[in-house]
Amino acid sequence: MNQKRIGKRTIKLNNRPTIIAASSIVGPKEGQGPLKDKFDLILSNDLYGQKTWELAESKMVQTVMEMSVRKADKTLDDVDLLFGGDLINQLFPASFAARELGVPFFGIYGACSTMAEGLCLGSMAIDGGYANYVLAGTSSHYCTAERQFRFPLELGTQKPMTAQWTVTGAGSVLLSSQGSGPKVKYIVPGKVIDKGISDGNNMGAAMAPAAVDTIYSYFDDTKDDPNSFDLIATGDLGKLGKQIVIDLLRDMKIDISNVYTDCGVEIFDIEGQDVHCGGSGCGCSASVFCGYIYDKLVKKEFKKIMLVSTGALLSSTSTLQKQTIPSVAHGVVIVND
Amino acid sequence: MNQKRIGKRTIKLNNRPTIIAASSIVGPKEGQGPLKDKFDLILSNDLYGQKTWELAESKMVQTVMEMSVRKADKTLDDVDLLFGGDLINQLFPASFAARELGVPFFGIYGACSTMAEGLCLGSMAIDGGYANYVLAGTSSHYCTAERQFRFPLELGTQKPMTAQWTVTGAGSVLLSSQGSGPKVKYIVPGKVIDKGISDGNNMGAAMAPAAVDTIYSYFDDTKDDPNSFDLIATGDLGKLGKQIVIDLLRDMKIDISNVYTDCGVEIFDIEGQDVHCGGSGCGCSASVFCGYIYDKLVKKEFKKIMLVSTGALLSSTSTLQKQTIPSVAHGVVIVND
Repeated sequence: MNQKRIGKRTIKLNNRPTIIAASSIVGPKEGQGPLKDKFDLILSNDLYGQKTWELAESKMVQTVMEMSVRKADKTLDDVDLLFGGDLINQLFPASFAARELGVPFFGIYGACSTMAEGLCLGSMAIDGGYANYVLAGTSSHYCTAERQFRFPLELGTQKPMTAQWTVTGAGSVLLSSQGSGPKVKYIVPGKVIDKGISDGNNMGAAMAPAAVDTIYSYFDDTKDDPNSFDLIATGDLGKLGKQIVIDLLRDMKIDISNVYTDCGVEIFDIEGQDVHCGGSGCGCSASVFCGYIYDKLVKKEFKKIMLVSTGALLSSTSTLQKQTIPSVAHGVVIVND
Repeated sequence: MNQKRIGKRTIKLNNRPTIIAASSIVGPKEGQGPLKDKFDLILSNDLYGQKTWELAESKMVQTVMEMSVRKADKTLDDVDLLFGGDLINQLFPASFAARELGVPFFGIYGACSTMAEGLCLGSMAIDGGYANYVLAGTSSHYCTAERQFRFPLELGTQKPMTAQWTVTGAGSVLLSSQGSGPKVKYIVPGKVIDKGISDGNNMGAAMAPAAVDTIYSYFDDTKDDPNSFDLIATGDLGKLGKQIVIDLLRDMKIDISNVYTDCGVEIFDIEGQDVHCGGSGCGCSASVFCGYIYDKLVKKEFKKIMLVSTGALLSSTSTLQKQTIPSVAHGVVIVND
């Protein structure tokens, strides 16, 4: 009997991998939102001193990685592994950041689920004793994502009200087997779920069933009580996807509504900032987790949380080929005990 | 002192994660090459019964995953984790295959280093007891890669002699803590190395320094003898990159020339099949490892090998922005003892 596997899906980490530091950067618009006091750095300009948006995104993710290492009084030489990725083709931002950081690099792609995917894999690497220090993080940028997945910004294309606003933001964690901080206790790897949504402007509906599958699996495996959590946060479902999660889980006899929010709902003032259904992008759950949620954990205002970052695995090619949108959501349970 | 870390980079797996099955599929051209008897399936048509090349590539990777499970007398329900990825934007082939397979999925991106990246991460997951069965694999397809990274095939664009031919192929392994087969003993995560090559038609030269860095790190960490290997195989450097590896390592006082080859050199009859410098693509080292090398390991003709899959982390966007080509190479040492 494998003591690390709980039920069908959940993995229990017995060696208490610890998030000893976390860092976040956001863009100007995110820096005007309700969480503006929670981020380490708010950019005054989307280009961050670079010549292109992709290079700006790369600098963002490089900078949050360096920040996390510095906050823990470590150097990049102390770090054994780096898990990173983003939405941009061939992980341009993460790959170029990894080149500058010089840390052995495993590129990961889970679309906007990347923050939780990195936390899962990084925590396993620490828990298993394969690394002493691991960096994990991700980024997204409104301008790089829009032009890659949708339309050139210059067109000024209107979006339907189900659409979301890609967050310009990045977040990183430094994981270790030593030191103090919140611990990763359970991880829940996500299955790819596709309920037939093909509208890339309704990603909340496409991704919500994947989040439901992951959250349900955790509670089914562990028999844990949703109300034992201070917070369950999905990645970037927005207000429509958030409601779908509540409704579908309630149908499955799991009520998370008392403790549940979505990072895409939290990061913007949805009505006031004209972002339709809310924020999206890898940087959404990354900056909200590494800024707001991590801060609450460190201050012991949260004792137990679940982060379920959600990713839509579409591409412009799959969209042109009239395919539906497969989605994935990885879960991480983080505790303060 | 961490017993699992050897020197600065190498990770030793003490619980003997075992490759209990491996499977491979290649396209028609690869099926006419010198390794044609080593693959499980040779496609008679690049489209594999699908409407698009991307869907054909997805079916290839799905099929090799199913084959590996079947060869081990297991079912997909037995498999706890799937590590997969490919060259195509947002991992279209792997993501859609993961949807069909229904196994919890960690998407990975290391360009053509993906086979070794999946072996690294999958082996850690088995070694650490986080999973009982893990699938890892990858694919590439000449037609999907060419049109994404270079030119529409219909143009019939000529390539310089330093260019390589993207392999249409897929490979997968099933890893377990139980059962018989070759064991993954060491893994060597790659750093991102960039020596300033910017020519996407000279990937061998771009990637060779990353392979050198990984191979050198292994020998520096372990003090192992290159001639104790039956084979050291890089991923897809082609004949030019292969020579660069030999030369650079010899300058560093490590001579692997007696036991060294490159999968991109092996898979094609380089002169006879008009592939310029040889094969490339994730599917190159995947199909050569899962076909030819795994077969030799199972037959005990090889006792100890190192696979160093190599990836060029460029994108069409980074190329248009006149960036150089960062590269990565992950290493895996597999033994038969």
